[in-house]
Amino acid sequence: MRAVGVVAEYNPFHNGHAYHLTMARQVADADVVIAVMSGNFVQRGEAAIFDKWARADQALHHGADVVIELPFHWAVQPAHLFAQGALTLLAALQIPTMVFGAEHPQVDFTALAEQSVNDTRAFKRFDQTYATLFNAQLEAKTGFRLDQPNDILSFSYAMANQQLKRPLVLMPIQRLGADYHEQVLSQQQFASATAVRKAMLTPTDQTVRQLADLVPKQTLASFSQQPAIAGWTPQLWHLLRHTLVVTPVTELANVYQMSEGLEYRLKAAAEENDTWPDFLTAIKTKRYTYSRLLRVCLYTVMHATTAEMVPGQSEYLRLLGFTSAGQRWLNEAKKRFMFPLITRFDRKLKQTTLNLDYRAGTVYEMLTGQAQDFRHNPLRVVTK
Amino acid sequence: MRAVGVVAEYNPFHNGHAYHLTMARQVADADVVIAVMSGNFVQRGEAAIFDKWARADQALHHGADVVIELPFHWAVQPAHLFAQGALTLLAALQIPTMVFGAEHPQVDFTALAEQSVNDTRAFKRFDQTYATLFNAQLEAKTGFRLDQPNDILSFSYAMANQQLKRPLVLMPIQRLGADYHEQVLSQQQFASATAVRKAMLTPTDQTVRQLADLVPKQTLASFSQQPAIAGWTPQLWHLLRHTLVVTPVTELANVYQMSEGLEYRLKAAAEENDTWPDFLTAIKTKRYTYSRLLRVCLYTVMHATTAEMVPGQSEYLRLLGFTSAGQRWLNEAKKRFMFPLITRFDRKLKQTTLNLDYRAGTVYEMLTGQAQDFRHNPLRVVTK
Repeated sequence: MRAVGVVAEYNPFHNGHAYHLTMARQVADADVVIAVMSGNFVQRGEAAIFDKWARADQALHHGADVVIELPFHWAVQPAHLFAQGALTLLAALQIPTMVFGAEHPQVDFTALAEQSVNDTRAFKRFDQTYATLFNAQLEAKTGFRLDQPNDILSFSYAMANQQLKRPLVLMPIQRLGADYHEQVLSQQQFASATAVRKAMLTPTDQTVRQLADLVPKQTLASFSQQPAIAGWTPQLWHLLRHTLVVTPVTELANVYQMSEGLEYRLKAAAEENDTWPDFLTAIKTKRYTYSRLLRVCLYTVMHATTAEMVPGQSEYLRLLGFTSAGQRWLNEAKKRFMFPLITRFDRKLKQTTLNLDYRAGTVYEMLTGQAQDFRHNPLRVVTK
Repeated sequence: MRAVGVVAEYNPFHNGHAYHLTMARQVADADVVIAVMSGNFVQRGEAAIFDKWARADQALHHGADVVIELPFHWAVQPAHLFAQGALTLLAALQIPTMVFGAEHPQVDFTALAEQSVNDTRAFKRFDQTYATLFNAQLEAKTGFRLDQPNDILSFSYAMANQQLKRPLVLMPIQRLGADYHEQVLSQQQFASATAVRKAMLTPTDQTVRQLADLVPKQTLASFSQQPAIAGWTPQLWHLLRHTLVVTPVTELANVYQMSEGLEYRLKAAAEENDTWPDFLTAIKTKRYTYSRLLRVCLYTVMHATTAEMVPGQSEYLRLLGFTSAGQRWLNEAKKRFMFPLITRFDRKLKQTTLNLDYRAGTVYEMLTGQAQDFRHNPLRVVTK
C-alpha cells in the first residue's frame, strides 16, 4: 500500500484540513494518508481546543487513515524543531512522501533549503524562525521573499528534511482559503483555525450557524459533545501562577528555556497579577515573542526540563487511531517502523519514555475531566 | 496597662471563644487581651474557613484587643511546635500571663510539665503528641490521665513554657460547652468550631437559624459577606495534585516532613485519584495520622522546605488588628517587644523573612479572590 504523510495540529479540524487530506491522497496517488498530529498542547504554547482523541477522531472521519501523536517534546517547540520532530516520525514510519500546504507551492523549498547556509547557530535560536534569520540572504540569492506563514513552515520542513538527509519527497500544494491569522469567520467555505476557535469559545447564534459551513460533521459533533478549551483556561493559568509563586527561582531556572533571568520576570509577574491577560502584558518585552513566552509558561506547568525536551532522546510512535484502510497499512508496514509503536499506555511507559506526555495528559485531564492516557485504546473508525 | 495573652485559631470565632476572652480578662484582671492567632492555614493542615482578616475582625469585635498572626511555620505544625511558637510570640510581646481553656483546669499543668522527662526525642516526633508519648508515665507518676483535647493542648503549653524557661504565668480555666470533635450543632449556646464550620459549609435553613445562637454578630457578618472556604477546597486539591504529578520525587523529597518514601506514596496517589476524598483514602496508613498527612500536603502546596519550617529562624510579630484599647497598649508596650513588629507588608519582607507567609497568603488569595498581604493595613476596631 502506498502511504503519504501529513503534519498537523487540527486545532480543530476544519474544511481546509479535509481539503488538504483529499489533495494529499490525490497528488501522491496514495492508498492511505498518515497524519502526525500534536497532542493536547500545541506549538504556540497553548492547550488544544479539543483533546487529542477528539481531534484524531475528526481527522479519521474526514480523510486521514492513521493518526500518530507528535509528542510534547517535539510539538511544543519553535517551528524548526516542530518540523524536525514531525519529519523524524514520518521518516521512522518509512513514509516516502509528505504533502503540505504553502502560499507559494511553486517554490522549490528543497532547493531553497539546500542553498541556505547550514548554520548550526539556527538551532540555538528559539525566538526567530529560519525565515527571519535567512530572509535577507535568501531574497538576495533567489529573489523570493519568505514571509507567509505556510511558506515559512514549508521551508522549515525542507530544512528538517535536509538535516535528516532527505528521507522524504516533499510535495507542496496550494493552501486555500482564509488567511492564517484571520480572526473573523470568512463567508467562504474555508476559515482559519483561529477564527473557528474564536467562534467555538465565544459562540453567538450567527457564528454557530456559520460553523456548520466551515467545519465537517465530526468537528461539529465534538463541539456539541464536549467543552471547548481556551488556549489558556483560567484553571491552567492558576496552575502556572501557583507554580511560579511558590517555587524558588533557583528551581524555576531548571525549566527548559528559562534563561537570561526569565525566571525572575515570570515570578514577579505572577506575584503581581491575578489574571492571565494582565500577566501576559507584564511579561512581554521586545526580546521575546508571545509564542516563546507561552511555551516557557507551558514548560513551567509541566515541569519540563532541558534533558526531557532536547531532540535525540528515545523516540516512539504513539498510535491515536486508524481507519479500516489504516489498519491494513499498519499490519503491513509496522515491521519496518524504526521506533517502537505504542498502542497501549502502561505503567512502565508512564514512568519512563512517556513520562512528559503523561504529565501533559494529566494536566489536560484536570482541565476537562476527560481521561487521556490510561483507559484509552486507539480509535478505530470503520470506513467503506 | 496590664495585658493577658491567649492563643487561638478562631476557625471561626464562636460564643465559646467570646466567653474565653471575657474570662481571660477577668481571671488575669487585665486591661487588654492579646490574641496570637493562626493565619490563613490552621494546625490540622487545612485552609481556615475565613481569611485571617475576617477572623481577626471577629475576635476584635468580641473581646480581643490586639491580634498577632502566628506565622505559617509555627501554625501548621504538630501541637508541641504550635504551642512553642505561640508562647515564643507571647513571651516576645512581654506578656506576663496566658489564659487557656482545659477540661481539667484544676490540674497543675506546670507541675506536670516539670515532672515530665525533658526528652529531646519528643521534638523529633511529628506523629504523636506529648500526651501520647508520656501518658503512661504520667499516669503512673501522677494518677492523672491526659486524654482530652484541651487538656493535651494545655500540657503542650506548659511544656513549651518550661522549655522557654517559664516566661509566662499559665492560668487554665474551665472549658465550656460542646465536645471539641462534635460534628452536630448542639442546642446550647456553645458548639464546637467543627460543627459551626460544617453548618456554614453545607447550610440548611435549620442550621443557619441555629448559627445565630452559636456565633456572635461579627462571625455572622463574615458568613453573609464572604464565601466560607472548605478545609481542602477542590481548587486547593488541584494545586496539590498538579504539584505532585509534575514534580519529580527527588524534588518532592525536599518538602518539610516528606520522609520515609512518603513522596512516592503521595505522587502515586495523586496520579491515580482525581478527587480529594479518594486521594486521602489512598494515602492513609496506620503509620501516619490524618493531621500529619494534611500538613505534609499543605507543605507541598506551599513548597515549604525544612530550612523554612524549623524553629529558631528570624521571628517577627505580624499585627493583624487592634481596638482602641489595644492601640494604647501597643504604643506603651511596643518598645519592649523582643521581635520586630510588622504593621506593613513590603517587598523586602516578602522576599525575605515573610516569604513563606506571603506564599501561603497568595495561595489563599487564589482560593477566595480576597487580597491578603499587600493592600492590607492592620484592622482598627473602635471600641467604647
